[in-house]
Amino acid sequence: MEYEEPKFFHVMQYAGAADGDVIDMVSGNPDWEPPGALREALREYAGLPPDVFQYPPSEGLRELREAIAERRGVDVDRVVVTNGTGEANYLAMARAFERDAGDEALLLDPVYPYYPGKVQLLGGKPTLVPTDRDGGLDPDAIREAASEETALITLNTPNNPTGAIYDIDAVWEVVAIADEVDALVLVDEVYDHFDLTGEFESALTLGSDRVIVTNGFSKSMAITGFRVGYGVFPDDHVFEAKARHMLVNVAGPRPSQYAVTHALAETDPEYFAESRALLAERVDAFTDALDAAGAEYSRPEGAFYVLARFDGFPGTMENVKRLIDEAGVAGMPGDAFGTARGDWIRFALVTPRTVEAAERLADYFDE
Amino acid sequence: MEYEEPKFFHVMQYAGAADGDVIDMVSGNPDWEPPGALREALREYAGLPPDVFQYPPSEGLRELREAIAERRGVDVDRVVVTNGTGEANYLAMARAFERDAGDEALLLDPVYPYYPGKVQLLGGKPTLVPTDRDGGLDPDAIREAASEETALITLNTPNNPTGAIYDIDAVWEVVAIADEVDALVLVDEVYDHFDLTGEFESALTLGSDRVIVTNGFSKSMAITGFRVGYGVFPDDHVFEAKARHMLVNVAGPRPSQYAVTHALAETDPEYFAESRALLAERVDAFTDALDAAGAEYSRPEGAFYVLARFDGFPGTMENVKRLIDEAGVAGMPGDAFGTARGDWIRFALVTPRTVEAAERLADYFDE
Repeated sequence: MEYEEPKFFHVMQYAGAADGDVIDMVSGNPDWEPPGALREALREYAGLPPDVFQYPPSEGLRELREAIAERRGVDVDRVVVTNGTGEANYLAMARAFERDAGDEALLLDPVYPYYPGKVQLLGGKPTLVPTDRDGGLDPDAIREAASEETALITLNTPNNPTGAIYDIDAVWEVVAIADEVDALVLVDEVYDHFDLTGEFESALTLGSDRVIVTNGFSKSMAITGFRVGYGVFPDDHVFEAKARHMLVNVAGPRPSQYAVTHALAETDPEYFAESRALLAERVDAFTDALDAAGAEYSRPEGAFYVLARFDGFPGTMENVKRLIDEAGVAGMPGDAFGTARGDWIRFALVTPRTVEAAERLADYFDE
Repeated sequence: MEYEEPKFFHVMQYAGAADGDVIDMVSGNPDWEPPGALREALREYAGLPPDVFQYPPSEGLRELREAIAERRGVDVDRVVVTNGTGEANYLAMARAFERDAGDEALLLDPVYPYYPGKVQLLGGKPTLVPTDRDGGLDPDAIREAASEETALITLNTPNNPTGAIYDIDAVWEVVAIADEVDALVLVDEVYDHFDLTGEFESALTLGSDRVIVTNGFSKSMAITGFRVGYGVFPDDHVFEAKARHMLVNVAGPRPSQYAVTHALAETDPEYFAESRALLAERVDAFTDALDAAGAEYSRPEGAFYVLARFDGFPGTMENVKRLIDEAGVAGMPGDAFGTARGDWIRFALVTPRTVEAAERLADYFDE
């Protein structure tokens, strides 16, 4: 196993060491307030008796699993609460490979950089499959790539980095392909609360025994540091996912799970609508400035990111550094996300200075 | 990969469903108060700005890693903060196997049940090696078992379940054997604060580049549910351990890490001395009652547990259930811990009802 240093480390270090004022549009950390009920519950937890400070059930607090199951319309036994969505994805991928059903994973290009790393950690082989022009799902490309060696197909919708939301009929086609080659389909829906189209549909609605859906509260509650995610596994795979979770992590963090449980029960839908509206405003402001800068981009349908391409300024690591030094804006080089968008730069819209960053880019490319 | 349901699940379910009053001596959850500074810090954290609710550095909060490094006398770069000691052990074992230095793990018998499960998860083969009569380390037995296939030797001191504390010279002999066969030595020291002899020495004092030491705050601060552990890796292995940690879990829980950081800085040594004294009292009371019951046992030198054998009453699952139903005391069957102590029963002394449990056992076996 050869490990690579993630590229965003490098960009963040470079931006942090820069002389001037740099607007950080690298990482996907929400910059807004978590739900008030979450803060209140954590404060309350701090005063509870010591038995509540001990291991939660390995699969997660019962009340939290029931709340998730009810919201997602699934049986509670299928829900495994994990140390963030990242661990849920790891468990899902592991389950796909340990079935002796091949060692290939089909990942969509552009790709979230952790996916190929996780696949390789688990002894699998990642194959990048093209998406359509705007990052949308292309079932024909997946059909062409799939074979008996395919154990796993991984989708992420709303998508990081393209902002695409996959059509549920196209997801269904992918599940049918998985059925033919005995693969599992992992659908990472961690950005589902940031659907800007109102048309997102969860892959759970397909009711397929080949689909594992992962999600978490990191983005929707603005608490990436709390580490509360979950996987909804088909009946045939949930025992193994729970067993691996226990062997790797024993359990997830109880203070975090307690706080999220209360926040889920007590937070008004308005809270989620407001962060979505905030993001939509930022998308407008940022894409207006990209228009002014003469950049090419796809307007995101969801999630936190905009991929942009500037004429004569390919999104290499070198140019990303120039942008940090000369424009005071830090993005991510497109080749961190596979091969399809090597010329592009990804900007995360999770900074209150999104408009300022957009103006800096417009000014810089207008010169 | 075939997963097994852990035996303690089964015992706890059985005890929970029993009609009468049952004293739980199954799990290793401390029953005493966490440090006051930990509660206070968690309360304070609940009111911090949203940026402090986002991802901590993947390897752990810098201040926490520095405090650990200072206490352990190692370079801070070697410290990886994990989702509990359980994850630290997983990372250490993974590192041993991914070096292409064999696929065998030597584990000591009796064995902490998660170790063989983790080894198998990672594609390794566990081999159980006998300990001496009281559970002490027997380097000759390890020498006999070690071969070119050996990638990992795992030690746990103070030991769960035997209570043995390994002589540091014997640990050194094991490291020398590891050197001969190119193995890594994982030393799990999570019970180091519960050294009842005053003679425990950490394997870090050996300064070996083959030794990975794991530890955590679950037991010492009575917070098994917080999930804050760590590994101290040799320079040659720490990059890979951090990379796997990031790929599996992204990061550990920040509220928990924040609380532990403050508790470490602000907790008087007296806190730790008091929980140790409490445990020593319970050992006295419990072993007195075992004497009264005519049981055989090894007096623990450290950790939370007593292994006992009752004449004509081998520690099978069936007899453990009888003890729940007829004496109102729940322990763990010895065969959950490998092959060496199949006739014994493990009792965890982390209940305020330890004396009462001891009296129940004495009465039951006196009949």
